[in-house]
Amino acid sequence: MDLNETEIVLRPIGFIRTSFTRANGTPIQSRFSNGAEGTVELLPEFEPGLRDIEGFDRLWLFYEFDRASKPRLIVHPYLDSAEHGVFATRSPARPNRLGMSSVQLLGVEGRRLRIADVDMLDGTPLLDIKPCVPQFDYLPAKRIGWFEGRLTEGAVADGRFEQQQSSAAESDLAC
Amino acid sequence: MDLNETEIVLRPIGFIRTSFTRANGTPIQSRFSNGAEGTVELLPEFEPGLRDIEGFDRLWLFYEFDRASKPRLIVHPYLDSAEHGVFATRSPARPNRLGMSSVQLLGVEGRRLRIADVDMLDGTPLLDIKPCVPQFDYLPAKRIGWFEGRLTEGAVADGRFEQQQSSAAESDLAC
Repeated sequence: MDLNETEIVLRPIGFIRTSFTRANGTPIQSRFSNGAEGTVELLPEFEPGLRDIEGFDRLWLFYEFDRASKPRLIVHPYLDSAEHGVFATRSPARPNRLGMSSVQLLGVEGRRLRIADVDMLDGTPLLDIKPCVPQFDYLPAKRIGWFEGRLTEGAVADGRFEQQQSSAAESDLAC
Repeated sequence: MDLNETEIVLRPIGFIRTSFTRANGTPIQSRFSNGAEGTVELLPEFEPGLRDIEGFDRLWLFYEFDRASKPRLIVHPYLDSAEHGVFATRSPARPNRLGMSSVQLLGVEGRRLRIADVDMLDGTPLLDIKPCVPQFDYLPAKRIGWFEGRLTEGAVADGRFEQQQSSAAESDLAC
């Protein structure tokens, strides 16, 4: 198999509504969102897949960073003055623009989920929802690399990883 | 924007080597892998993106469940005798076949990462790597829905979500 030739085609299962319309000022992580609320709106055909989701406190949302700038392999992240490899950061300007956030589930109304701790832009295309199960997901990890000592409460983004208006068309593909 | 028309095209950044060649007998979660070891092999062009990754104990790997059967919205998961909506489970047979695993980073050798706690099939296409930062990712979640009381140590998969040989060609796309 030639991996360079392989394409994996995904289609949104819905989108995420938040109050954040520009990267500038958006929380850089759920943890820094001050409980900001939002909504998941699933496309109608996927609603049956939500059965029993109301039993979970928290969900992992997977989405496309659809307004991120072109991928960079070396990035200058929000929380540090030094550069790091993109896979050692959570920068949205990644080779495959996949985002992951842990959100709190406040309520389920048909195909709409009321959520809190949102850190994504309004209208973000949703790709998957998985239940958060700490017994699976919260495995011991002490060393956090360059983040050590740099976890500033309330950190928000600026425009450094945002697509520029003029280059929107050429950045449509993830790689 | 018509979400039904939108396609998001991803390309593998590498692949994951493990000792598991069939779903049958593969650990269903990293947590149940007994520390099984494997390797991430990044494509050469992405190697610069690994800079500083050696500082982290744990990484999130994102990959395609490339041998999963066609998506189902209602699934009968490994750990329960009842059916649930796919978004309330971690089943690989999802509308977008995205997998996430938390693996331990044992070492970095050029563009190869030695990892432990693997629960994916050998040759799985890798889509993204993010550093695991418990302060971001391990947010309080007490209610774990139908998983409550069903977290059997050492659980392994059977073939229920595996692509059948004869239908491999028609299941190539994620939706």
